[in-house]
Amino acid sequence: MPPIRGYVFDAYGTLFDVHSVIEAGREITTDPAALSATWRQKQLEYTWLRALMGRYEDFWAVTGAALRYAIRRLGLTATEAQRARLLEAYLSLTPFPEVKAALTRLEGRPRAILSNGSPRMLDAAVASSGLGPLLQHVISVDAVKTYKPSPQVYALGPKAMGIPAGELLFVSSNAWDVTGAKAFGYQVAWCNRAGAPAEELGWTPDHVVSRLDQLPL
Amino acid sequence: MPPIRGYVFDAYGTLFDVHSVIEAGREITTDPAALSATWRQKQLEYTWLRALMGRYEDFWAVTGAALRYAIRRLGLTATEAQRARLLEAYLSLTPFPEVKAALTRLEGRPRAILSNGSPRMLDAAVASSGLGPLLQHVISVDAVKTYKPSPQVYALGPKAMGIPAGELLFVSSNAWDVTGAKAFGYQVAWCNRAGAPAEELGWTPDHVVSRLDQLPL
Repeated sequence: MPPIRGYVFDAYGTLFDVHSVIEAGREITTDPAALSATWRQKQLEYTWLRALMGRYEDFWAVTGAALRYAIRRLGLTATEAQRARLLEAYLSLTPFPEVKAALTRLEGRPRAILSNGSPRMLDAAVASSGLGPLLQHVISVDAVKTYKPSPQVYALGPKAMGIPAGELLFVSSNAWDVTGAKAFGYQVAWCNRAGAPAEELGWTPDHVVSRLDQLPL
Repeated sequence: MPPIRGYVFDAYGTLFDVHSVIEAGREITTDPAALSATWRQKQLEYTWLRALMGRYEDFWAVTGAALRYAIRRLGLTATEAQRARLLEAYLSLTPFPEVKAALTRLEGRPRAILSNGSPRMLDAAVASSGLGPLLQHVISVDAVKTYKPSPQVYALGPKAMGIPAGELLFVSSNAWDVTGAKAFGYQVAWCNRAGAPAEELGWTPDHVVSRLDQLPL
């Protein structure tokens, strides 16, 4: 494979720990992990469904809708203010512990976020985490009004960075996202933090790591 | 709303009980319901992901891949012959008990299946269930090589039946499928057999029934 000339990172679950919203969930449930998991699964489903329907709404709207579903599905109740606090947890997510050192280790080559998140959500998370100086590009699907794993989304990375997909390493904790990037033409690394089973979609990641400081240079 | 001039049914979970594959699962697990649920969820995810990636494979291939994932995910083992028997359960699914009477009740207006299933899978399920004489059209997404809820799929119904979507009643047990059909322009009925929560996708079904013999005439 050609040398890696730049890195493209998924944001939620890869750089930022989405389950740090669990803490915010304690206000409305004794099982915040179940709320977090149901919310996250439905959030992804709604991105896929809306993208396929050609009915894009941005990730803030989708995340709010998925939260309403999860609350109802689990038989919980929440005031509008409680829902707002849960959603706002997305604006100040905690990065995984190794992220700063891992991005610093890759210095000298451009590093980007390519995420389903809306520009406002990504800007807030990058600012609050202090990752800004370590990232040269923050790219949102909002530019093309669809969601991963559409090839239109993956095309945004090479376009913004001026580097062909085959010379970029795309990194995600989501196996399906890695699959979409690989099918598009990136070199890919699956950051499998949780020891999840691989998908059966017909593509194999080039690299599998359990932490971002293990990425190939 | 204009009078209903024809009916378009989803197949799996709507006319045919997908969980009748549970019985076939007893051969490899003591919890066949978990296998069936994991298999079904992943089967849907793979249709959405492949459709969004623009990498269609037919529903037989996707269903087989989802089964391999589910077996691995649940820590089970299965021989190739056992996997084949599980898959083949899709060729002879049991219709829900009221289906024949419900389709007969609608006689005089054309009734169609519009399904993710491959032509071979649908032909087999229709033949083995004896529903053939009650259906005028059996339409597979395979004609457009993508999956629900793509508008390209929903367009197949009006095209085959020669009736505008607004004068057809689309019926599915899957709330997301009903949503896709409604967004396309059908009148829609959600057959919510299990008392599932509604989706938060921004469209409301025109009718909600718990059995197919309650459909509006």
